Amino acid sequence: VDAFIWPIRVYYEDTDSGGLVYHANYIKYLERARSEWLRQLGYEQSALAGELRIIFAVRSLQIDYLKPARLDDRLEIETRLQHCGRASLVFEQTAVRKTIQRELLGRAAIKLAVVDADTLKPRALPETLRAEIAHAG
Amino acid sequence: VDAFIWPIRVYYEDTDSGGLVYHANYIKYLERARSEWLRQLGYEQSALAGELRIIFAVRSLQIDYLKPARLDDRLEIETRLQHCGRASLVFEQTAVRKTIQRELLGRAAIKLAVVDADTLKPRALPETLRAEIAHAG
Amino acid sequence: VDAFIWPIRVYYEDTDSGGLVYHANYIKYLERARSEWLRQLGYEQSALAGELRIIFAVRSLQIDYLKPARLDDRLEIETRLQHCGRASLVFEQTAVRKTIQRELLGRAAIKLAVVDADTLKPRALPETLRAEIAHAG
Amino acid sequence: VDAFIWPIRVYYEDTDSGGLVYHANYIKYLERARSEWLRQLGYEQSALAGELRIIFAVRSLQIDYLKPARLDDRLEIETRLQHCGRASLVFEQTAVRKTIQRELLGRAAIKLAVVDADTLKPRALPETLRAEIAHAG
Repeated sequence: VDAFIWPIRVYYEDTDSGGLVYHANYIKYLERARSEWLRQLGYEQSALAGELRIIFAVRSLQIDYLKPARLDDRLEIETRLQHCGRASLVFEQTAVRKTIQRELLGRAAIKLAVVDADTLKPRALPETLRAEIAHAG
Repeated sequence: VDAFIWPIRVYYEDTDSGGLVYHANYIKYLERARSEWLRQLGYEQSALAGELRIIFAVRSLQIDYLKPARLDDRLEIETRLQHCGRASLVFEQTAVRKTIQRELLGRAAIKLAVVDADTLKPRALPETLRAEIAHAG
Repeated sequence: VDAFIWPIRVYYEDTDSGGLVYHANYIKYLERARSEWLRQLGYEQSALAGELRIIFAVRSLQIDYLKPARLDDRLEIETRLQHCGRASLVFEQTAVRKTIQRELLGRAAIKLAVVDADTLKPRALPETLRAEIAHAG
Repeated sequence: VDAFIWPIRVYYEDTDSGGLVYHANYIKYLERARSEWLRQLGYEQSALAGELRIIFAVRSLQIDYLKPARLDDRLEIETRLQHCGRASLVFEQTAVRKTIQRELLGRAAIKLAVVDADTLKPRALPETLRAEIAHAG
């Protein structure tokens, strides 16, 4: 299955005084891309939280930083669903910069748990949502 | 009345690739200082939101940036209550750096509205809270 | 002159536990929009800082918060240049949400100084850049 | 060796509309704690970058999120140096909340590379700094 591609522009807010993108800000880029991945399936997290009382909570995250990004860089976040369980999702995501060639800047694996918005206890994904996610991945 | 002083250390997360503290991050410093000002009066916003269903919403903010701050700088945020209305608070806050002399880095005026956490409509401050705030200002 | 329009999507990173967009994060939206305004004129701040040693430093900022934004909202930042001086720029920016009608969420005035990237002292805009900016405004 | 303890207070800026601390913001807490760990050894990163032209770049990061934190929580970040190589550092860090008992909220492993501030190429730690770090770890 092809990766879902989401473009990201680097702004001043993302950089630090070392002149590069601050390492924690890539984690925000990844989350934006997962939100857009879900949106193109027709689901918005505000609606999932409001109507179904479902939240996706990050359980673990592993990231390798390979090359730095800088102010004004145009990046692409590639998102691939690796696994869709009853109450969990595993993604592989990469950050790339496309100049003359494709430069791999970072690579991450993220595990999400599906939890109840009120109790924060694990909850099974509703079956239709799970079917659509599994079909897309 | 003396200002309430809250110390702030500048970390990488606060800076940008210009080498200075990113301008929006001072706004976070100011909010931390107002939270601590309220805490020393004995009130935590999580409890106010949870129990009394009261939130302080920023209505307007005016800030002058006079001198830049840098990584590892130790700043002080000075907070003074200027006015306590039935459903609003006005603060004056300054950011200073104390090295050999006292350097004024920025100065801000912030107006908060007291709103209901559910409806976001304006609400009067509870009388005991209002009395304590007005006495402290 | 028409405003320059830049779309912004609200992500989890932008919200706070009050359920709304955190007030300091609008300041980041405004800066993204000014960066894109400059980019459509053909200038990138990384190049201006690297080659011409010019940085735009925020001198003052005044913002009114009129209505809140929420997770998944799609906003537009409208940017208008109000004044272009020898070494300063003044912008008026608004945040709007377009649903059935156009909702004005906030309104800001921002003054930037043109400074030398090394000394941080005020510097005149290069004449060609100034002419293009003034023509665009 | 005992862990180095650094206290963190949770502010509105750290939370998201799910009501909890946003997952990427823990990464900032960890970096603050490592900065303070280095500071108590007598080193500031601004001086290392300015005088020795040395920067610590995050190479990889693995984090497990075990329990959520909320607005106004008081956390402690525990920092332990696991390994000090010629041009790299490995840390283990945990986030805990101390209420009646000690609650483990998260656990992370972070690998830093020592790089040249100009070329971003790996560089050996200066011997005195390396000796002090290794002694502290």
